[in-house]
Amino acid sequence: MDDNLCMRLAIKEGLKACREDEVPIGAIIVKDNVIIAKAHNKRNSSKIATHHAEILAIEKACKKIGDWRLEGAIIYVTLEPCPMCAGAIANSRIKKLVFGAYDTSAQNKTILNTILNDTRLNHKVEILGGVLDETCSEMLTGFFQKKRNK
Amino acid sequence: MDDNLCMRLAIKEGLKACREDEVPIGAIIVKDNVIIAKAHNKRNSSKIATHHAEILAIEKACKKIGDWRLEGAIIYVTLEPCPMCAGAIANSRIKKLVFGAYDTSAQNKTILNTILNDTRLNHKVEILGGVLDETCSEMLTGFFQKKRNK
Repeated sequence: MDDNLCMRLAIKEGLKACREDEVPIGAIIVKDNVIIAKAHNKRNSSKIATHHAEILAIEKACKKIGDWRLEGAIIYVTLEPCPMCAGAIANSRIKKLVFGAYDTSAQNKTILNTILNDTRLNHKVEILGGVLDETCSEMLTGFFQKKRNK
Repeated sequence: MDDNLCMRLAIKEGLKACREDEVPIGAIIVKDNVIIAKAHNKRNSSKIATHHAEILAIEKACKKIGDWRLEGAIIYVTLEPCPMCAGAIANSRIKKLVFGAYDTSAQNKTILNTILNDTRLNHKVEILGGVLDETCSEMLTGFFQKKRNK
């Protein structure tokens, strides 16, 4: 499946979060050219610290295929993942991470690579960043701008 | 609450995992001297990649107190956390991590510190490792020994 098309679907998920007054971050997981999970950030509504888009998408994908190993899968997420989500991507053996906006608040740029190539897993995750970067960034800045105006 | 006592309760959780034929790792969370969550690794039985003891304990604790912020809380876990769980500990603003056995397969010893002091959070997590180290290690080595003998 086309990276831009998949990222657009992840953005659509992010917009759902926005409508629920959640920080707009969306994720989808594709395996064998089929979308097996879609999710968006729900941390504020669920009041659960782990409920980032990526974690929820990974959990849905595992349930869908009945295996904790998502081998061969690709995750599309609108924002560069935090360490928890990067760790979950590595733990679930996802093959490739495609993200939209770069997280400008992540000062340590080597963390993502370090986590996704953690020596505890005989597994490396490919990374492609900046897909539809501008649209993904605008979704976030627009959300925070509205918040400030309120 | 006493660190050794709390670690013993985490070990008790780990033994539950063992009886369920899961890698024996247990965790408990204490806030204001009260145990607010207990959990053990369930990855194989639930078939969900994120179901490590720490993630399940954090989710239970958030539900218990109705907030994603576990400020002032201490998590006790029988094994040094993986990057995903370390990230979740930082994301949930847990004050302190106390772990038992050191993860000898974690070759990059700086990851844990880097994640727990991620610049994206205005928050630092204190770390104390090696509490009841031997008992925690034996629980793991005993489990894998039995597996090999079968």
